[in-house]
Amino acid sequence: MPSMMKAAIFVEPGRIVLDDKVVPDIGPLDALVRITTTTICGTDIHILKGEYPVAAGLTIGHEPVGIIEKLGSAVTGYEEGQRVIAGAITPSGHSNATLSGCGSQCGAGTRHGWKPLGGWRFGNTIDGAQAEYLLVPDAMTNLAPIPDGLTDEQVLMCPDILSTGFGGAEAGRIRIGDTVAVFAQGPIGLCATAGARLMGASTIIGVEAIAARAVISRAMGADHVVDFSKEDPVAEIMRITDGRGVDVAIEALGRQETFEAALRVLRPGGTLSSLGVYSQDLRIPVAAFAAGLGDHRIVTTLCPGGKERMRRLMEVVASRRVDTGALVTHRFPLDDIEAAYDLFAHQRDGVLKVAITP
Amino acid sequence: MPSMMKAAIFVEPGRIVLDDKVVPDIGPLDALVRITTTTICGTDIHILKGEYPVAAGLTIGHEPVGIIEKLGSAVTGYEEGQRVIAGAITPSGHSNATLSGCGSQCGAGTRHGWKPLGGWRFGNTIDGAQAEYLLVPDAMTNLAPIPDGLTDEQVLMCPDILSTGFGGAEAGRIRIGDTVAVFAQGPIGLCATAGARLMGASTIIGVEAIAARAVISRAMGADHVVDFSKEDPVAEIMRITDGRGVDVAIEALGRQETFEAALRVLRPGGTLSSLGVYSQDLRIPVAAFAAGLGDHRIVTTLCPGGKERMRRLMEVVASRRVDTGALVTHRFPLDDIEAAYDLFAHQRDGVLKVAITP
Amino acid sequence: MPSMMKAAIFVEPGRIVLDDKVVPDIGPLDALVRITTTTICGTDIHILKGEYPVAAGLTIGHEPVGIIEKLGSAVTGYEEGQRVIAGAITPSGHSNATLSGCGSQCGAGTRHGWKPLGGWRFGNTIDGAQAEYLLVPDAMTNLAPIPDGLTDEQVLMCPDILSTGFGGAEAGRIRIGDTVAVFAQGPIGLCATAGARLMGASTIIGVEAIAARAVISRAMGADHVVDFSKEDPVAEIMRITDGRGVDVAIEALGRQETFEAALRVLRPGGTLSSLGVYSQDLRIPVAAFAAGLGDHRIVTTLCPGGKERMRRLMEVVASRRVDTGALVTHRFPLDDIEAAYDLFAHQRDGVLKVAITP
Amino acid sequence: MPSMMKAAIFVEPGRIVLDDKVVPDIGPLDALVRITTTTICGTDIHILKGEYPVAAGLTIGHEPVGIIEKLGSAVTGYEEGQRVIAGAITPSGHSNATLSGCGSQCGAGTRHGWKPLGGWRFGNTIDGAQAEYLLVPDAMTNLAPIPDGLTDEQVLMCPDILSTGFGGAEAGRIRIGDTVAVFAQGPIGLCATAGARLMGASTIIGVEAIAARAVISRAMGADHVVDFSKEDPVAEIMRITDGRGVDVAIEALGRQETFEAALRVLRPGGTLSSLGVYSQDLRIPVAAFAAGLGDHRIVTTLCPGGKERMRRLMEVVASRRVDTGALVTHRFPLDDIEAAYDLFAHQRDGVLKVAITP
Repeated sequence: MPSMMKAAIFVEPGRIVLDDKVVPDIGPLDALVRITTTTICGTDIHILKGEYPVAAGLTIGHEPVGIIEKLGSAVTGYEEGQRVIAGAITPSGHSNATLSGCGSQCGAGTRHGWKPLGGWRFGNTIDGAQAEYLLVPDAMTNLAPIPDGLTDEQVLMCPDILSTGFGGAEAGRIRIGDTVAVFAQGPIGLCATAGARLMGASTIIGVEAIAARAVISRAMGADHVVDFSKEDPVAEIMRITDGRGVDVAIEALGRQETFEAALRVLRPGGTLSSLGVYSQDLRIPVAAFAAGLGDHRIVTTLCPGGKERMRRLMEVVASRRVDTGALVTHRFPLDDIEAAYDLFAHQRDGVLKVAITP
Repeated sequence: MPSMMKAAIFVEPGRIVLDDKVVPDIGPLDALVRITTTTICGTDIHILKGEYPVAAGLTIGHEPVGIIEKLGSAVTGYEEGQRVIAGAITPSGHSNATLSGCGSQCGAGTRHGWKPLGGWRFGNTIDGAQAEYLLVPDAMTNLAPIPDGLTDEQVLMCPDILSTGFGGAEAGRIRIGDTVAVFAQGPIGLCATAGARLMGASTIIGVEAIAARAVISRAMGADHVVDFSKEDPVAEIMRITDGRGVDVAIEALGRQETFEAALRVLRPGGTLSSLGVYSQDLRIPVAAFAAGLGDHRIVTTLCPGGKERMRRLMEVVASRRVDTGALVTHRFPLDDIEAAYDLFAHQRDGVLKVAITP
Repeated sequence: MPSMMKAAIFVEPGRIVLDDKVVPDIGPLDALVRITTTTICGTDIHILKGEYPVAAGLTIGHEPVGIIEKLGSAVTGYEEGQRVIAGAITPSGHSNATLSGCGSQCGAGTRHGWKPLGGWRFGNTIDGAQAEYLLVPDAMTNLAPIPDGLTDEQVLMCPDILSTGFGGAEAGRIRIGDTVAVFAQGPIGLCATAGARLMGASTIIGVEAIAARAVISRAMGADHVVDFSKEDPVAEIMRITDGRGVDVAIEALGRQETFEAALRVLRPGGTLSSLGVYSQDLRIPVAAFAAGLGDHRIVTTLCPGGKERMRRLMEVVASRRVDTGALVTHRFPLDDIEAAYDLFAHQRDGVLKVAITP
Repeated sequence: MPSMMKAAIFVEPGRIVLDDKVVPDIGPLDALVRITTTTICGTDIHILKGEYPVAAGLTIGHEPVGIIEKLGSAVTGYEEGQRVIAGAITPSGHSNATLSGCGSQCGAGTRHGWKPLGGWRFGNTIDGAQAEYLLVPDAMTNLAPIPDGLTDEQVLMCPDILSTGFGGAEAGRIRIGDTVAVFAQGPIGLCATAGARLMGASTIIGVEAIAARAVISRAMGADHVVDFSKEDPVAEIMRITDGRGVDVAIEALGRQETFEAALRVLRPGGTLSSLGVYSQDLRIPVAAFAAGLGDHRIVTTLCPGGKERMRRLMEVVASRRVDTGALVTHRFPLDDIEAAYDLFAHQRDGVLKVAITP
């Protein structure tokens, strides 16, 4: 194992560069994973643009696929050389939040054991996955062995977007026979569509203007794709549902327009499941909210993590219930990650997700 | 049975008057109930002020206690002379909404069986309870016999505020050991406090500036009452919870300030259970909402109705788990209901709820 | 409309005969439906054999597809001539059980509003569907219009076996990524398999010895089908799950062996969802039950009914999420229903379900 | 810190003796707790009698209250000298079971992360709490600081019987207005009664023949106590509920008679929540089980553990919602623990729980 490695480092707003970094030492509960494949997330672009602040010098990335290089002295149940993934969110296992089933808000080490977004550590509060090596904290809680026969790319969506997208469907408590709308069919919206399909929704309506994404949306389970650039999505969804509205509306963009449209298409008693990252205050229109008397639910979900979550998601992939293959549109070696960022940040060439291989 | 009766009728904004009205004929599924006690709700004041529109000539009121005078030809399982209540919300029993467990949004007769607020009929879409006689639609779904030994006043809060307040606690899914804040300790907030106590919350914080209500709040189960006129309720609740925030925050007023404060005191992963009737768009501050990544839930509840709900609430009263006696602060004969409206609308003399007896 | 009709009538154990019967008069809440297609259920065979007692002279059958011939005077929202189905279970809509979301145990007219199996009326406590005409009680609660474009046979499984099978998956609270075993792949077990697939189970194991059923089992969603006549199903399921056991085991036969095997393959914390009709006391082996300390759940489900349930199931069929076409293996005119009973009771010729058309 | 300590050690069936033992060394994730108070559980009596096998030489006991003596090298967030409790069940925090919210079946170190009863380690698979010092594994997951102002005896019931009893009420999903029966009012049944009361049950019926326990049962929340030695509890509960049966029946003894009676008093759609430890196969009477068609649920619960659970329970105690003071009927120094076992095993002198102080 070398002492130095390449890593994609946040320098200042507008600059993420590949640079040399010391391979980290690990503590007793950690593992060192040699990254074999990783990817770039929309959140990384927020970081790049300075919209989400992280420390200068931090390695970016939270979607690791790799091989265990070294295990902390107190870690049992794993072997060096095992192929593993870890979730984007790495709950400690022992915080009050984790023990309450809400590891995304894990506050291990804080007084109360809860911290908003505290489970998101990779590429946020500790060095991330866009590097040759990654320190995985609380390794026994977070390392999930990859089942035999699955390639890196097959499991690459599990750490974040599959978990997030399914999480949106799950938080919406979709039931057999539900009608569901999913606003935006980017990577997370597409996974939410797949999740809605998996949970038994009988009518799924994607909202998306990019034709290539509409095609994938249908492949992931959408029955209808509404092109919001050509028609009013609220009116069109009400038409498709014969005026009834949807049981569950999933917001997968993070904007006022989609949040509001999601609320407007909800039937009374319906659920708005929000996955978007909002950068501004949100407005709830009082009429769409039935003055607070419509028995509506608005729920938000941060990507669920932990090894059991990852195990389940990989089972879904292994069983061929969902195929995320179409989501990987481009591939780059780690050495070219700056080009990958450029492509992804500008959403050129129909990019959905890129695979980065050190 | 006389052919004419007294009823409190909405004439125009600013005017609800007691006038003569024909005792209604009933259809095969209806019942005619002779009202023995009813009350005035905050919503009735919204109607009085013209803030919530209803048809001119409508009888107001949705909280009936009375005696079955007459049963529709298809109604079985009841007897004339039985003492009964009906919920403020009268689901049909056969709409898709009712059959989905969401009778408050009952749309019997509509194409899809859902209609926002459709279950609220008394004093909204049909004549209400502030009268000598009340037609109860879908009587078999809605009439709940009063257990022996309970007085009218003991069950008078069941049709609306007890059901609503408990509904807020239930929608918050309060668990044993939770910390709960309830914003505003008016009649509904007080019942939400009682509901939180009944469900096992171990710390309950009421927010209220009126001293007399603070006293009742403690009697209903609050451990702390924060006087928002003297201290910032958000800061004070964070102090009481040692910086942790609350598991569930119940909004029982219907204003931006309380909605927002409720969100600000929530721990990550917590639930804002909203009971208020809002008259303006609501704003969700992005920081308090953790940019949509805090695993928060916002749920709204319209008073659950139907005879099974009423049966359960009366069981709670009969078992002395909750005593709503302190809520009835004033009593008027129906003949003086205009004076009662005057008192209640202006919140004079420490009024909480008034008992009206024809 | 004729005054007399043909109906399959229970005479005595061993004898169900086609005979003439008066077309029923309907009450204000009823509808008369002209049956266009119906079927025979395993329960009807229990009745035929005298294992489940019903009154002599009762018309059998609880799976109606037909056309509204006549509506009761108090029924609104429907038209004569509409194509409809009704569930095998017909909750009243207004019983305490229905209002509690448990219409299968509907006790309308009883003192408390609950009655074991009380929602099952067709072919049990009132005349059933194997006839030219059927009286549907509480029509507004139970009649579900058939969406355009669906044939009788496409919706024929909705009233009972699809609702029951899905109900078993739902009661098991199957989650994305679960491993599920379904014991017996008769009509109900096959629908439970389809339900498990619809809810996102990633590994589904059917247990069945009949080769033709194994083929359909795979088509409905099973990943593995264990032939219990050739191998021990408990051992084989433990092998398939690598010793882990299943998250949910569905019993769809009604025997001690399958109930017990279902318990033995459950992981700790798992759920046994039971759909079978048992004719004898059941034994829970203490070891498989972890002495009562395994956090196990055993849940039973009687076919959920009511028009909202039927609407949802028909949506699932219309959306092509599930195809029950392969379940209809034989077709008979009503005039030959005795032959159909003979075939079905003896399970000849690979029969799964028969379509009966008056 | 001395190198030797006193400990209550299982020698062979019939013999638990106080003997000297080496104070354990701790690993990086462990803590050493100096026990200040502990108690004896019914399960310990099963061990004493040889009915539940443990290794010879094992220290017994799973209900620790004490002071942190020493922390493992990887443990953060605690200080030596802190007063703490740990649950009877000590989930690892990082097993798949724990991460699924089912830490009682924690299988850390096993291949799949699940193991029946695997979370129960103290006095079962590792040395227990009836000693001067206790090694607490996975300390960060399990050590819960005692709030200021609570005495040892006030929190002594939290590690096991309060968690178990409340767990039975929670698993029964008791709702406001429910009617609940609790079979047996020993320490766990009494805590289940308290849990039912805390969750809002409006009628609670304890079943118990010992007069002193009946008195405490009423203090913990029972409205009725049925003396099964004087009247048939099934008949009496049906009489009290006016023939309706109960919504939830909690079994807190572990015998066929109580299990069966619990099932017989359930209304259709009700839940049997089982807490008992069964030593023989159980029989489900087919009639009481409505042939499997009654929409019944049977759920079992092993004492939930982990520091968040303990924190919540201590909050309940601190808020005076429940007072377990009456449960401690006897007190012994650790030196006299053999006498305590003798008293407790023979249930002499009205003993409920004993406090043991090293």
